[in-house]
Amino acid sequence: MPAQHDLNPVMSVAQVSAMLDEVFPQFNVDRAFEVRDIRPGGCTVRLNAGDNHLRPGGTVSGPSLFALADIAGYVCVLSHAGPDALSVTTNLNINFMRKAEAGPIDGHCRILKLGRSLMVFDIEMIAGDDQHLVAHATGTYSIPPKR
Amino acid sequence: MPAQHDLNPVMSVAQVSAMLDEVFPQFNVDRAFEVRDIRPGGCTVRLNAGDNHLRPGGTVSGPSLFALADIAGYVCVLSHAGPDALSVTTNLNINFMRKAEAGPIDGHCRILKLGRSLMVFDIEMIAGDDQHLVAHATGTYSIPPKR
Amino acid sequence: MPAQHDLNPVMSVAQVSAMLDEVFPQFNVDRAFEVRDIRPGGCTVRLNAGDNHLRPGGTVSGPSLFALADIAGYVCVLSHAGPDALSVTTNLNINFMRKAEAGPIDGHCRILKLGRSLMVFDIEMIAGDDQHLVAHATGTYSIPPKR
Amino acid sequence: MPAQHDLNPVMSVAQVSAMLDEVFPQFNVDRAFEVRDIRPGGCTVRLNAGDNHLRPGGTVSGPSLFALADIAGYVCVLSHAGPDALSVTTNLNINFMRKAEAGPIDGHCRILKLGRSLMVFDIEMIAGDDQHLVAHATGTYSIPPKR
Repeated sequence: MPAQHDLNPVMSVAQVSAMLDEVFPQFNVDRAFEVRDIRPGGCTVRLNAGDNHLRPGGTVSGPSLFALADIAGYVCVLSHAGPDALSVTTNLNINFMRKAEAGPIDGHCRILKLGRSLMVFDIEMIAGDDQHLVAHATGTYSIPPKR
Repeated sequence: MPAQHDLNPVMSVAQVSAMLDEVFPQFNVDRAFEVRDIRPGGCTVRLNAGDNHLRPGGTVSGPSLFALADIAGYVCVLSHAGPDALSVTTNLNINFMRKAEAGPIDGHCRILKLGRSLMVFDIEMIAGDDQHLVAHATGTYSIPPKR
Repeated sequence: MPAQHDLNPVMSVAQVSAMLDEVFPQFNVDRAFEVRDIRPGGCTVRLNAGDNHLRPGGTVSGPSLFALADIAGYVCVLSHAGPDALSVTTNLNINFMRKAEAGPIDGHCRILKLGRSLMVFDIEMIAGDDQHLVAHATGTYSIPPKR
Repeated sequence: MPAQHDLNPVMSVAQVSAMLDEVFPQFNVDRAFEVRDIRPGGCTVRLNAGDNHLRPGGTVSGPSLFALADIAGYVCVLSHAGPDALSVTTNLNINFMRKAEAGPIDGHCRILKLGRSLMVFDIEMIAGDDQHLVAHATGTYSIPPKR
């Protein structure tokens, strides 16, 4: 894809992480999610999947991977459109390709479009020794008007 | 839609609930999800949304509504294709329409197609005093071959 | 679903059909698409599928069913938000359930949300002697600001 | 993404093009679609968008871009799983990001998963002097069992 390298982040990993801790106190109780990288047009968020993220068969559950996609999109919005906590997901489509076991899952997220009121993104979720693609999602965040 | 009333459930609410308790011990710690109804071609699952399901702004989070959709689809698979715990979601697309506050959210799920290896479903998630549609999802479960 | 019966159409079948003929001259060369009904919160559009809508195996092609979904959504926007031709689809997710043969396919479309700048809809596409569900779609139209 | 470079094509551009001409006689009347490249784990298909692919406002229509995504997925299935014409799309989700004008639109498609019975793919559709991303889609093809 033509890189969206003209999209410059306005917040750092430390700033976004501090904001998530503040606005989502119940969110990250077990430090399950970590912001790993913020770069022009994208970010990487890691899910450290533990027992509470598994479903029958010992694989990481759909809701856990959905949460990874949703949070990574949120990190992209915050870091590129500015620290307004009230952006909301309007649509998310996720495909589950391979089973993931407990352990780190890296969500590499990129901004497909950053408009005034909408951001479209996709994300590849990679896990395991062989770094397989376990899930892929595409989604849209609605960005509230500046006040 | 032409009703799929020829699809007859093979498990009751009590049987599915007992099976979920057994195979998902970590799943329903706080009794957040309740199977309310199983009927020909569909089911209703309720999310009793508490503080841990909220995101900034006090509204029910995307992952919580995704989980409701995913679980309701799972209840449809179990109750109509039989008690094999290993069916997995392959795709789920969700649209978020209105904010939901803490409280009960009813997911009315219907089977759009039940084939030998795939089940397609959709779900309407309804909440609040005025019983608004807060979210809508469509998804696919892959059903493992009979052993 | 809680009916959106409070959504009142502002254009009739004849008015929308005349507008489509005018703004889409290349669109409906063979009278393949017909607006059949406009009602509070929804509409029905028919695709009269002929040879040019078929794919290998003699079944109606994916792009033809996508077009039916897209046009029905457009008819819902025009008839409920007013005659502005410039609304555009931003997202559409479609599931194909059963094969459809040449002949009429009825797309029953309903508005899930009509906001100021976005309309979310879904559509059931029904065909054949037994009136099976052949495809289901969910989509979003972006509505331009009033000038 | 970890490249799927271990996925080797079994058909060439010339072979797939000849097969499309044969099985889709009505499909490519105006030579609107061209297979440009087939490579390990992916392919590129071009839509030469003309007047009949435009919608009001002079931009390439949703159904035309959907067709590009659908055909590119089909070219990936044929070229990587072998020349069985009867694979069918089961799901396709498309996001429209920017307007495209008449002219060439390149669909760069990659296989996210190639299983025995399903292929999951995504596609970036690029157009214009500045080679912008105009649309992005993710989809699934069902592959019939070998006879």
